[in-house]
Amino acid sequence: MIESRLIAQLKQTVGEEAVLTVKEDLETYAHDATATWSHRPDVVVLPTTAGQVARVLKLANEHRIPVTTRGGGTNVSGGCIPVKGGIVLSTVKMDRIIEISKTNLTAIVEAGVVLQDLYNACARQGLFYPPDPQSFLGCTVGGTVAENSGGPRCLKYGVTKQYILGLEVVTASGEIMRLGGLVPKNRMGYELMTLFIGSEGTLGVVTRAVLRLLPMPEVQKTMLALFDDIVAAGEVVSRIIASGVIPAKIEYVDNWVLRRIEQLMPMGLPQDADALLLLQCDGSAEAVEAEAKKVVAICQQGGAREIRVPKDQAEADKLWAARSGAGAAIFSAAHTGFIEDVSVPRDKIAELIRKCREIAQKYDVCVPVVGHAGDGNVHPNVLTDDRDPVQFEKAKKAKDEILATAIELGGALSGEHGIGLDKQHFMPRALDPAAFALMKQIKKLLDPNGILNPGKLWPEASDGQR
Amino acid sequence: MIESRLIAQLKQTVGEEAVLTVKEDLETYAHDATATWSHRPDVVVLPTTAGQVARVLKLANEHRIPVTTRGGGTNVSGGCIPVKGGIVLSTVKMDRIIEISKTNLTAIVEAGVVLQDLYNACARQGLFYPPDPQSFLGCTVGGTVAENSGGPRCLKYGVTKQYILGLEVVTASGEIMRLGGLVPKNRMGYELMTLFIGSEGTLGVVTRAVLRLLPMPEVQKTMLALFDDIVAAGEVVSRIIASGVIPAKIEYVDNWVLRRIEQLMPMGLPQDADALLLLQCDGSAEAVEAEAKKVVAICQQGGAREIRVPKDQAEADKLWAARSGAGAAIFSAAHTGFIEDVSVPRDKIAELIRKCREIAQKYDVCVPVVGHAGDGNVHPNVLTDDRDPVQFEKAKKAKDEILATAIELGGALSGEHGIGLDKQHFMPRALDPAAFALMKQIKKLLDPNGILNPGKLWPEASDGQR
Repeated sequence: MIESRLIAQLKQTVGEEAVLTVKEDLETYAHDATATWSHRPDVVVLPTTAGQVARVLKLANEHRIPVTTRGGGTNVSGGCIPVKGGIVLSTVKMDRIIEISKTNLTAIVEAGVVLQDLYNACARQGLFYPPDPQSFLGCTVGGTVAENSGGPRCLKYGVTKQYILGLEVVTASGEIMRLGGLVPKNRMGYELMTLFIGSEGTLGVVTRAVLRLLPMPEVQKTMLALFDDIVAAGEVVSRIIASGVIPAKIEYVDNWVLRRIEQLMPMGLPQDADALLLLQCDGSAEAVEAEAKKVVAICQQGGAREIRVPKDQAEADKLWAARSGAGAAIFSAAHTGFIEDVSVPRDKIAELIRKCREIAQKYDVCVPVVGHAGDGNVHPNVLTDDRDPVQFEKAKKAKDEILATAIELGGALSGEHGIGLDKQHFMPRALDPAAFALMKQIKKLLDPNGILNPGKLWPEASDGQR
Repeated sequence: MIESRLIAQLKQTVGEEAVLTVKEDLETYAHDATATWSHRPDVVVLPTTAGQVARVLKLANEHRIPVTTRGGGTNVSGGCIPVKGGIVLSTVKMDRIIEISKTNLTAIVEAGVVLQDLYNACARQGLFYPPDPQSFLGCTVGGTVAENSGGPRCLKYGVTKQYILGLEVVTASGEIMRLGGLVPKNRMGYELMTLFIGSEGTLGVVTRAVLRLLPMPEVQKTMLALFDDIVAAGEVVSRIIASGVIPAKIEYVDNWVLRRIEQLMPMGLPQDADALLLLQCDGSAEAVEAEAKKVVAICQQGGAREIRVPKDQAEADKLWAARSGAGAAIFSAAHTGFIEDVSVPRDKIAELIRKCREIAQKYDVCVPVVGHAGDGNVHPNVLTDDRDPVQFEKAKKAKDEILATAIELGGALSGEHGIGLDKQHFMPRALDPAAFALMKQIKKLLDPNGILNPGKLWPEASDGQR
C-alpha cells in the first residue's frame, strides 16, 4: 500500500483529477489483453507532460514504488499488468500529434497517441506509418515503441524500430533524455534509442517520439489463395519471395480458423482447405499490377486449389476484416486462450505448423494457427479453460512445447508480442548467457532500484544467476 | 611499448605469421582514409576465429593494452587510427561468406568480408544487400557494422542497422556473445545488437553478422538534372518525395565538383550549372518506368535547365562512376582535405548549402559540396594545405562552423562517417547531457578498463563531466 502522504504528492504533481485511487477505477488497470493475468495497482496517475512524468518517477524512485507504464492496455504478453502493485502510469492523456512534415516524412507525436489516429492524420496528407499491430484501434505509439510492435505489413516494411528517428524518454531517476531527432541518418555515438525500443517499460518511460513516415502507396491489391496442404502453401510463400516480389502482407490462416471465420462471416470458403493465404501487394498502380500477376501465377503453379482476386475494394476490405477478426473469432470459441507468438526462419514455417499439430494431438488441445507467413512470425493459439485444472495444465504444457520448438528451429520466443509475464520462464534457455547477463547489467544501470515494470522479462529467480 | 613476453603470447594465440611487429608493416596500420591523422600501433594481430579474438582481448584486458579493431581501413573519421598505440586487431582474415539463403533472404558472414565480395555473392543468387558506402571496394562488413554505414541507396533502403539480424560480438573481457539470429522479427528482451552497431569498435569486436537481404531490383533507371540554382534543386528533391516516389538515390553535386568532374571526365556538362542532381529509380520494370516519368516531370516543372536520361546502361554507369569518383576528384585538387559529413532535415538542405558557401567565403577556403540530397546527408569538403599553418587554421575553423550550422539546423554531426577522432570535440554540445552521460556509463559497463579503441567518440577531458 502507498502512504496517503505520497498520494497527496502525486496529486500535487499531476493534478487531483489525474490520480485514481478508487477500487473500481483501479480494477480497469489490473488487466491487459491476456486472459489469465491480473493485478490491481495501488494508484493510477495520468500525467500530461514529460515534466510531470519526471516528477512522478523521481518520487517513486525515492520511495522505491513500482511504476508500470501503460498505453492502450492492449498488450498480449502481460506486459502492463502491475504485478507488484504500486503506480500505473498511463500515458493516454499525452495524446498530441505535434507535427507532421510531408517534406521530411516525419511525425512528432506524444506517447499516448492512438495508432489509428496517427494513421488518419497521416492519410490526410497522403502519408503512411507502416507498423500495424492488429490492436491499432486502441494501442498507443508509446506502447508500440515499448513493445517494438509488428503486424502484417512488417513483411515488406519492417517493425516499429525501423520507424523511430527520435525519442524523449524519462529515466527511472526522473531525468528527461532526448535521443535522435528529425534526421534519418544520425551517427552521434551509441544507438541508445534502440535500447528503449522493445524494453517493455523496464528501462524508462517514452513520452514523445519522432516517427519516420512514407508516402501512402498509390494502390493496394488483395489476393486470396486456398491450399489442400500447408506444406504447399509454405512452399508458395518461399517462391514468391525468391521471385523478387515482396508483398506488403502474406497472412496465413489454418483450416480451423477458416471454418470459424466462415461460420461467423460466410464467404463461401471451402470447409476442407488446409491453408488459406491472404496476400496484399502495394505501391504504384503499374508495379502492383505486375506483382499481383506474378503472385497469382506462383500460387497456381504451387498447387493452389482456388485463387480469388476481390473485384473491388469493398470485397478486399471484407477479407481483411475477416483476417483482423481472426483473433476474436478464435478466442470467442473458448473460455481461456493463450495468444502465442513465435518466430522462425521463413523456410521453417511448414515444419513449425506441422509440429504445432503434433503437439495439439499429444496434449489433446485445440491449437488454431494464424500468422504472418511471409516473415516467419506465426501465432499458434492454445484454446483451453482455466476452470478445468487438468485441461489447463495440458494447455500450458502444449504452449511451452510450442515455444521450445520455435527455439529449436532457430527462431525466437516472440516475434512481436514481447516477453512480459508470459514467456519470461523461457528466457534463460532462449538467450545466450553472455547476452542475458548484459541485459541484467543494463537494467541495473538504468533502473538501479528496480522500480520500472518489475517482475517482467525474466524470472526474478534468475536475477542472481549469470 | 608492449613487452616481448606479450608478443610471444599473441603469437601463440593467433600464430606466428599473424602477428606483425616490423616497423614497415606497422606503418600500414597507422593510417585510415583521413588526411591528417596517423599513429603507429605496437603490434598488429590478424586472427582467423572468434575464439582467437576472445583470447587476444582477454590478454589485452588483463594487461590494459589498447585494442583498435580495423577492417578495410577505409574509415573517414579517424575511427581506426590506434592513437594510444597497443594492438591493432585486423579482421581481414575472417572473410568467409558462410551461408546465403534465398528463401530466408539472409546471409551469414564473417566480419572481414569485403562489401563488394558480398555484393557479388548475393548477385549470383539474384539477391541484394542495400547499404553502399562508397568505399565498398575495400571496406568490410565488420567496419560497416561498427560505423553503421550509409551510402546513396539509404534514401530508399535505410542504413546498415536496418540490415543486421544477428551479431557475434567479442566483449572487452574476451567473452563471445551471440545476439539476434536468422529471424527478422525477434522480441527477446533488450535490443543489445544495435548498441554495437555504430559503436566504432569501442564496445566490442564484431566477428560475425547475420544480414537481411532483398531480392535484386529488376531494373534501375538513372536520370541527371541540371539546375541554375541550388534552391530550385532542393525544392525539386522535396517535391519528388512528396509526390510519393522514393528513388533509390538522389545525389547532389555542386558547381565546383561538376566542373572538376567535367575536367577529369568530359561529358559536356554545362560549366555554369549551380547544381547537378543524379537520380536512380529501381524496382520492377513497370514501377520504374512510371516513377522515372514522374521524376522527369517534376524536374521540368521545377525549372531544371537540362534533363538527361542515359540511353543505355553503359552511359548510366559512366555517370555513377563520375559520382563515385567525386571524392577522389575533389581531394586530388588539394594537398589536404577534410571529408565532412553532416545530416540535416530534408527541408533544410538548401539552407545548409547556402551557409556552407557563406562560411567558405568568410574563411577564404574552398568547400565543394556533394551529398545524398534525398535524405539530408551532405558532404561539404574543406580543401586546405596542412603545410600552410595560417590557411590550415582557417580551414579547421570553417569545418567547425559547418558542424555547428548542421546542429543549429536540427541535424547531426555525422550522417554516416561517424565521430572517430574528427568530431569528438563537438559531442559535448551536440548531445543531450543525459544521453551523453548514459553513453559514458555504457562504455564503462562494457569496457571497464577502457581498452577498446581508446581516445575515440568523445574527448577524454569530458570523461569526468556529466
